[in-house]
Parts: sequence; structure tokens; C-alpha cells
Amino acid sequence: MYPNPSDISRITCIGAGPIGGGWTAYFLARGYDVTVYLHDPAEEPAFRAILKTAWISLTSLGLATGASLDRLSVSYNLEDAVKDAEFIQESVPENLELKRALYAKLGEIVPPAVVICSSTSGLMMTDIQTTCDTPERTVIGHPFNPPYLLPLVEIIGGKKTSPDAVAWTSAFYEIAGKAPLVMKKEIPGFIATRLQEALWREALHMVANGEATATDIDVALMNGPAPRMAVQGHCLAYHVCSGKGGMAASFDQFGPALKLPWTRLEAPELTRELRDTMVEGCDEIADGRSFEELAAIRDREIVAVLAAIRASRVVDPGGNDA
Amino acid sequence: MYPNPSDISRITCIGAGPIGGGWTAYFLARGYDVTVYLHDPAEEPAFRAILKTAWISLTSLGLATGASLDRLSVSYNLEDAVKDAEFIQESVPENLELKRALYAKLGEIVPPAVVICSSTSGLMMTDIQTTCDTPERTVIGHPFNPPYLLPLVEIIGGKKTSPDAVAWTSAFYEIAGKAPLVMKKEIPGFIATRLQEALWREALHMVANGEATATDIDVALMNGPAPRMAVQGHCLAYHVCSGKGGMAASFDQFGPALKLPWTRLEAPELTRELRDTMVEGCDEIADGRSFEELAAIRDREIVAVLAAIRASRVVDPGGNDA
Repeated sequence: MYPNPSDISRITCIGAGPIGGGWTAYFLARGYDVTVYLHDPAEEPAFRAILKTAWISLTSLGLATGASLDRLSVSYNLEDAVKDAEFIQESVPENLELKRALYAKLGEIVPPAVVICSSTSGLMMTDIQTTCDTPERTVIGHPFNPPYLLPLVEIIGGKKTSPDAVAWTSAFYEIAGKAPLVMKKEIPGFIATRLQEALWREALHMVANGEATATDIDVALMNGPAPRMAVQGHCLAYHVCSGKGGMAASFDQFGPALKLPWTRLEAPELTRELRDTMVEGCDEIADGRSFEELAAIRDREIVAVLAAIRASRVVDPGGNDA
Repeated sequence: MYPNPSDISRITCIGAGPIGGGWTAYFLARGYDVTVYLHDPAEEPAFRAILKTAWISLTSLGLATGASLDRLSVSYNLEDAVKDAEFIQESVPENLELKRALYAKLGEIVPPAVVICSSTSGLMMTDIQTTCDTPERTVIGHPFNPPYLLPLVEIIGGKKTSPDAVAWTSAFYEIAGKAPLVMKKEIPGFIATRLQEALWREALHMVANGEATATDIDVALMNGPAPRMAVQGHCLAYHVCSGKGGMAASFDQFGPALKLPWTRLEAPELTRELRDTMVEGCDEIADGRSFEELAAIRDREIVAVLAAIRASRVVDPGGNDA
């Protein structure tokens, strides 16, 4: 019942803060016609500023053929804003009652074959869609800030969402140039925020205990794990660091370290099952490539990342080289 | 009593696994004369392979004037290996008794004005240096893998280490082109590993619960937080994401989210003191730059990182684009 995701050409973005504005810029850069719904004319200058800023980066990364800021329409009337939409990206403030009222209305005025995605980072679709008469096509499509640059979109439906709508959403974002990640369970914070939040809470513990300053945290991340994480994530990074034995060897060598107080976060029990699941998962990512190949790729990409950051900072010596 | 750190020209690396071998390659690339101590001739082929691999990346990043693989000496005799050393980087296996025996010996045969740094990630210098007669100059200098590429070195002394040796170590690594981070307290896992380990444990919890696979974890990191973390760490990233209000606004808006179950890690209590410390810390990193300036720098650098990774993968379509 949903249209072919590659036939989509008209998108409506609801909400025009940093997330909604960022999505608008992104879809324009990918060559879509975009209508943005603003709640209040007073929001327009800030929205235009976000668009202008985002466009600089999007242009550097390469615009799609025909992409243009002229293909933007601004509307202050919700019915008008959504009437031609083939896809809707909702990014209104993180307030459950506000979202419920909006989805109740969208449920009435938007044809049921149009998928509506929410950018929410803190709410669950099961809770949002309760008031919507056509909840099957309501899905979470959670981007990462800045949404016009970072490719990740985490996707998960609520209890009443149809699996078809979830599959459609993933296919659509993929075509739109994003990195869609369909989640297996509706969990608070999804995946990326949970990982980031664990790190952030440990950072706050260290600061609270006088063990590190904000500068220390950032220096450690930027010069240590982050450039590697940008090219190999964390599972593959550990798999490769352990040489020929991969993740299995890593658990054999560092498994006991899970009991060490290297963070305030208690580790799960390293059962045989968890070990095997992770080992298989890493083999899947490695996809037959040897650790030497993967290490060579990692090194080449870290070099590229470090050189790119360095070059950016040479251009602007006031850059964030704290 | 310690020499001027910029006068150092001869370094001895003890241990030649991935860490010791990586350090050897790095110091050679920075133009030092390096002697490496190998425990056993059987280790030499693997050590040479590490050196060869590392040299490719180090050459891409730019070698120091006069840097050459010919300035390497290999020794199988510890006394010979250290006799001309002006700085020692120790990277033997993570075994407390092994390190204690080694530091007892080094304490006797290495002049007390030569600083000895340990690459240990899991042990504390207070525990290692107990057997050393000249512990004042023994310091932790913990690199991040791969040590020839990632700039971070975490530095901390043990109870018997002199503050002068710690300061000297930091100055020396800085001159050698590293990003030294002097820690305020001797805590297990130092800073970067604690942050990374919190993230890793949360990842293992998700896998154990069937909420995510290894691929999901890596896709989420590589396409979400990691490219931003590589250019702004985490504190400055949150500071900038919150717009004009910075970290203070972030706590006002997202402080309550610390109570949400967005990870299994319990958050510290967000006291007024912790809030103020973080706000001041972020102001320090921001260093008078407005959030617009910082956002523009962030965007330019994320673009550079994404473009660099993309370019690396175009060259090698077999790259890690999982």
C-alpha cells in the first residue's frame, strides 16, 4: 500500500528547530521538494539561519542533481503544509502531550499511505501513537545532531506500527542517503544515545570526583578512541586489535577485565552465549577479511581522518584544538 | 636533574608486541634513534611486520626530518639495550610480577635521571614501582591502540613518583608530537579507557538482551556519535548542541534525562557544584568562541572527516563500510 520509496519527491518537515531545520536542509540537498511547517512566523529567522549554515556543509559534501534552496516552501498552516506530502518528518519539541495532539490531527488529515516519522530521541512511538487513528504508518526516525551531517537514523515502530511501514522507512532513508538502523526492540534512548549516555555518565562521575575536567574528557576522546571509532566502531575495533584471534581472543584476554572497576557501569555476565554472539557478530562485520586487511584499512582511514582534521585546523588555527 | 626534554635523541623501547612495536615505529618516525629490546629472537619477525605496517601510515602523515628505519637497533640484552637510553618506554605484557621484576632491574642499571614510562593500561604505577630502588622517575605513559597513530598518552605517577618526572614526561611527549594528558588521580582504567569501557559494557548489555547486534553497535557509532566526537569530544559537543545557552542550557534541558534509563549506568547526582564545574569546564574549552563559531568549526571538521572516510573507501571498495 505504501508508494515505492524511490518515487518520493515531496517531503514535509514539521518543526523547524535545529533538528527540523537540519532535516529540511538535508532533504533539500538530496534533491527533494520540501515544505516546512512553522508554528509561528517568529521562528522563521532562526530557521533560515540553520538552513544557511547547513547548506555550506551540504554543498561541500556534494548536492544531488537539481537540489536547490528554491525548492523549499514555508507554511504556517498544518493542513496546507501536509496536503501534498509523500513523507513526513516530525521534529516538534519533546513533549508527549504535544506530540499526541499532533499525531491525533495528522492521523485525520494525512492519507494513511503516507509514512510519518518522528525525530524524537526521548519518547517511544508506542506512547505517541495512542491518540492516532491511523497509527500503522507512524515510525520513529531518530537522527543524530547535526542531522544534516551525521548519517545515522535509528528506526523503530510502536506496538501499533506495521512492519511494512518500518521496512518502507528504512528503504526510504537509505535511498535518501542516510544510514538507517532498524532496531530490534523499543528501548529508551535507542542504541546510539544509550552508548553515548553511558560514556557521558562516566564522564560526569569523573568530573564529580575530581578525577578529570571537561577538557581532559574531550582531549582523551578526540586523541584516543574517537578517530578509531569513526572508522571501525567499537566491536570491529576490538576484533582487529586482538590480531588473528579476533573477538574470541579479545574475550579470552580481556574478558576478566570486565570485572575490573574501569567504569562505574557494571558489566553483564560474560556467558558463553554472549561471547559466542559477539564473536559471530564480529565475524559478520569482518566478512571474511583478515585482521591484517582490516588493520590496514583502519590505519588508512585513521590517517585520512587525522589528516583531514589537521588540514581543517591549518585553515583555521582558531579551530577546536583544545 | 632531568635533561631538557628537547635534547632527547636516544630512546629505548622494551617489549615489541603491538604496543612496543608501535611505539618504536612512532619514535623512529619522529626522528629519534631507537633501540628496541626483544626478549627472544623468535619475536623479531612479528616486530618487523608491525614496523613495516606502521611505517606506511607514519609516512602518509609526514616523517620528521632525518627520520629513518635505519636508526633502529635491535638488542636481546637488556643492559646493552638501555645503556645509552635517554628515555625508556616499557611495553612488556600486563603482568604485575613481570613488571615488578623488570623495574627492580631497571632501577639498578638505568641512571636515575632517565625517565622510564610504562605503557600499561591495566596496572597502577604505585603497584609496579614497589620493587624499584629509584621509583621517582617511573611514570605511566599509556598510549591508545594503534599507538603510532592515535595521539593520546595518559600520564600519571605512582605514590613514589616525583612531580618533576611527571611534568618532564608530559613535556617530552608533547615535543615528540603526542597529545599528553596528565591525570589528576591514579584511577583504574585512566580516563579514555573508562569512557570507552562504559560504552563497551552498555554495548554488551544490549547484545546480551537481544536489543542490538555487533553490526548495529558499530553502524550506530560510525554514523552517529563518533565523527562528531573525533572533532569536539563530548563536553564541547553538548555545549555547542545546546546553542547560545551552552552547557548550562544543556543541563537545564537534559539534566532530568540523567534519571532516564538511557543506559544501565547510574548517573551521578547532578548537584549544583557538578553543574557549575562542567559549565566552567566547557567555557574553558570554548575559550570565548561563540556557539555559532564552534558549530561552524564542528561542521567543517565533520565534513572533512566524512569526506576523508568516503575518499578512503572509494579507493578501496572493500573497506569497512559495514
